[in-house]
Amino acid sequence: MTNSLRFAPIAADLPPTVPFTGPETLARRSGQPILARLGANENGFGPSPRAIEALAAAASEIWQYGDPDAHDLRSALAARHGVPTDNIMLGEGIDALLGLTVRLFMAPGEAVVTSEGAYPTFNYHVAGFGGALHKVPYRDDAEDPEALLARAGEIGARLIYLANPDNPMGSWLPREQIEAMLDRLPSGALLLLDEAYADFLPPEALPRIDAEDPRVLRFRTFSKAYGMAGARIGYVIGAAAAVAGYERIRNHFGLNRIAQAGALAALGDQAWLAEILARVAASRARIAAIGHASGLQALPSAANFVALDCGGDGARARRVLEGLAQRGVFVRMPGVAPLDRCIRISTGPEAAMDLLADALPGAVASA
Amino acid sequence: MTNSLRFAPIAADLPPTVPFTGPETLARRSGQPILARLGANENGFGPSPRAIEALAAAASEIWQYGDPDAHDLRSALAARHGVPTDNIMLGEGIDALLGLTVRLFMAPGEAVVTSEGAYPTFNYHVAGFGGALHKVPYRDDAEDPEALLARAGEIGARLIYLANPDNPMGSWLPREQIEAMLDRLPSGALLLLDEAYADFLPPEALPRIDAEDPRVLRFRTFSKAYGMAGARIGYVIGAAAAVAGYERIRNHFGLNRIAQAGALAALGDQAWLAEILARVAASRARIAAIGHASGLQALPSAANFVALDCGGDGARARRVLEGLAQRGVFVRMPGVAPLDRCIRISTGPEAAMDLLADALPGAVASA
Repeated sequence: MTNSLRFAPIAADLPPTVPFTGPETLARRSGQPILARLGANENGFGPSPRAIEALAAAASEIWQYGDPDAHDLRSALAARHGVPTDNIMLGEGIDALLGLTVRLFMAPGEAVVTSEGAYPTFNYHVAGFGGALHKVPYRDDAEDPEALLARAGEIGARLIYLANPDNPMGSWLPREQIEAMLDRLPSGALLLLDEAYADFLPPEALPRIDAEDPRVLRFRTFSKAYGMAGARIGYVIGAAAAVAGYERIRNHFGLNRIAQAGALAALGDQAWLAEILARVAASRARIAAIGHASGLQALPSAANFVALDCGGDGARARRVLEGLAQRGVFVRMPGVAPLDRCIRISTGPEAAMDLLADALPGAVASA
Repeated sequence: MTNSLRFAPIAADLPPTVPFTGPETLARRSGQPILARLGANENGFGPSPRAIEALAAAASEIWQYGDPDAHDLRSALAARHGVPTDNIMLGEGIDALLGLTVRLFMAPGEAVVTSEGAYPTFNYHVAGFGGALHKVPYRDDAEDPEALLARAGEIGARLIYLANPDNPMGSWLPREQIEAMLDRLPSGALLLLDEAYADFLPPEALPRIDAEDPRVLRFRTFSKAYGMAGARIGYVIGAAAAVAGYERIRNHFGLNRIAQAGALAALGDQAWLAEILARVAASRARIAAIGHASGLQALPSAANFVALDCGGDGARARRVLEGLAQRGVFVRMPGVAPLDRCIRISTGPEAAMDLLADALPGAVASA
C-alpha cells in the first residue's frame, strides 16, 4: 500500500471480509449452477404483476434521475402506515439505511448491543464506523430482550439491534414484549427494530409504536413480502427529527427511478400481498414436511424461511448445506452455535420445493 | 432532540441543507410543471434501445438481489477499458462512490482541496465525514491544476478533487496537463479525477493513466453519455489495492439487479453511444445559437451541457433562470462568482430545444 492509498484509521483496521458472498459468486466458484435459489430469503413467488408492468413501463424513463424525495412512494407509504410523510425515510434497502443510521447516531468507540448470530450486515456497519459491538446469546432460538437490555445497561449502549421476526431463526416476539422493552431502555439508548419480515406477521401481532416515539426506529423493506429484493428500496419509520437527520448524510439521488415506480405499484396491490402470505405459509409447511421426511425438525417461523434443525453441531449442518449446494440447492445457515445446528431455507415456488425434496435426503445421508 | 435521537458529533455539526433539490420538488413547490428537463445534465436522447429492452426483460427477475460482485458488468467494463476486473469497483452512481472514497481514505480533520464552484456533492461528503475543505478559484472558467497543487502542498491535502471535463462550466484540460499534475502531487495526496463527462471527449483527449497508478482514482458513470441516470451505476477505475478497500465499507447488495442488466446492454451498443455524441454536439451548437439570439454568449463545452454567460452578475443569471423556470424550462446555474454569471443548460432533443428557444427571449427580457 503506497502512501497515496493509505486507508483512514477506522477503515485500515477493518477486515477485508464481507457479510455475505452472493449466490452468483458461489456458483461461479463451485461450477455448480444454482437450480433452486433458496438462500437469501428472496421471494421466489415474485412481486405483483402490476409491479413488473410498472418497472417495464418506466424503463424508458431511465435517462432521468429518480426523485430524490421519492414523493409519490413516500406519500403512499405514509398513507399505508397512517403516519405523516415526515416520519418516513427511504433508502437503498435496509442495508444502506442501517449504515446511515449507525453513522448518524453512533460516534466511534460507542457501545452497541446485538445478539450472537443476528444480522451480520448490521455488525459490519457498526465495525465500519468504529463502534464497539457487544453480543448476547439467543434464548430458545429467539432474540432475548431481557439480555439485550441488561447488557445495554451495563455498557451504556448507544444502539440496540433487534429483529422481529428474527433472521436467521424465524422466531418472533409478542408485541407486548417489545412495547415493554421500550419503557425499559437505558437512558441514551436507541432501539433499531428491524422489521424486514414484519409483513409476514398479522398486523395485530406487531408492536404499537407511535411514529414520533424517539426511542426507536423501525426498518421495513420491499425486498421480502413485496418480492423486490433487486430493486433496493427500504424505509425507516421514525420520529421526524430522526428522518430529517438522514438528509444530512444520505445519498440523495441513490434510489433507482424505475424501482420507485415498481415499489409504488407493488404497494398498491395488497391483494397480491395477501396471496403471497398464503403461499409463503404453505411453503413453510412444505419445507417442514420435506425436512421431517429426512429426520430434520423445522423450527416455528413467522418469516419467509424455515430453520431446519439438522440434529447435530455446526459441522453437521454445514455438511448438509454443502450436500444441497452440490445438488444445485442454494441455502444458508446461521454463523454461530447453537443456532448453527440449523440450515435456513427460504420459501419458494413448488418447482424449487421439488428440487429441495429431491436433494435433501442425499445431502442428509452424506452428512 | 431527545437523548435517544442525539446525533453523532460529526453529523450534529452538519447543516440540514442538501446539495441539490430535485426537479420534481421544485415543480411541486412552484406549481409550474417542467416541460423541458434541461437542468440535471441527464441525457434526454435516452439510452440505447437495447438497454431499455434489457431493463424491461429483466423486470421479472426483480425478486432476486443483484449480483453483489456485478460480475458480468464489471467484466465487460474491464474489457472495455483494457484493465483487469480487479481495477474496477462499481457503486450506486459516482455520488455514492465519492462518499465511500472520502470515508475510505480521509480521516476526520484531514485537509481536502477542490475548486470554488465545483461539484457540491463532493463537498457534501467531505463535510459529512469531518474533513477540512479548502477551495481555490477557477481560472478562465476552468479548474486550475496549478492552484490545486499549490494549495494542496500548503495545507498537506489528503485528497484533491478535479473534474475533467468540468461541471458546471463544461471546460476541459489537455491530457498532458493532468498527466503532469500526477507527477507533482504532494506526498500523501490522492487525486480524485471525476470523469463523469469523459465519454463526451474523444478517447485520445483523455489522460493516459495506468490502472495501477496509486496516485489517482478515476470516476465514471452510466448516468451521462449512456443515458441511464435513473439506474444509479457508476464505477471507479483504480489500483487493485484501492478497489479491494471498498469491499470493507460498501453496501455490497446496493446495485439494482435490472440496472446491472441495462448497463451491460448499454455498454454493448457503442454505435448508439457514437450517435449520442453526434446528437449532443449538435444540441450544444443549438443551445449556443439560441443563446446568441438573446444576446447570451455560450462557453466552449466538452460535455452534454453548455454554460451561457448572461452578461452580468449572479443576480442577473438567477433572474434568467427563474424566467425560464416560470416558462417550464428547468436549468441550473453555478453557485459562486464569477461562474454564476452563467446558466447551465443540458443538451437534449429538439422538442426541448424548441421550448428553450421559445422561453429564453422572454426570460432574458424580464431579467
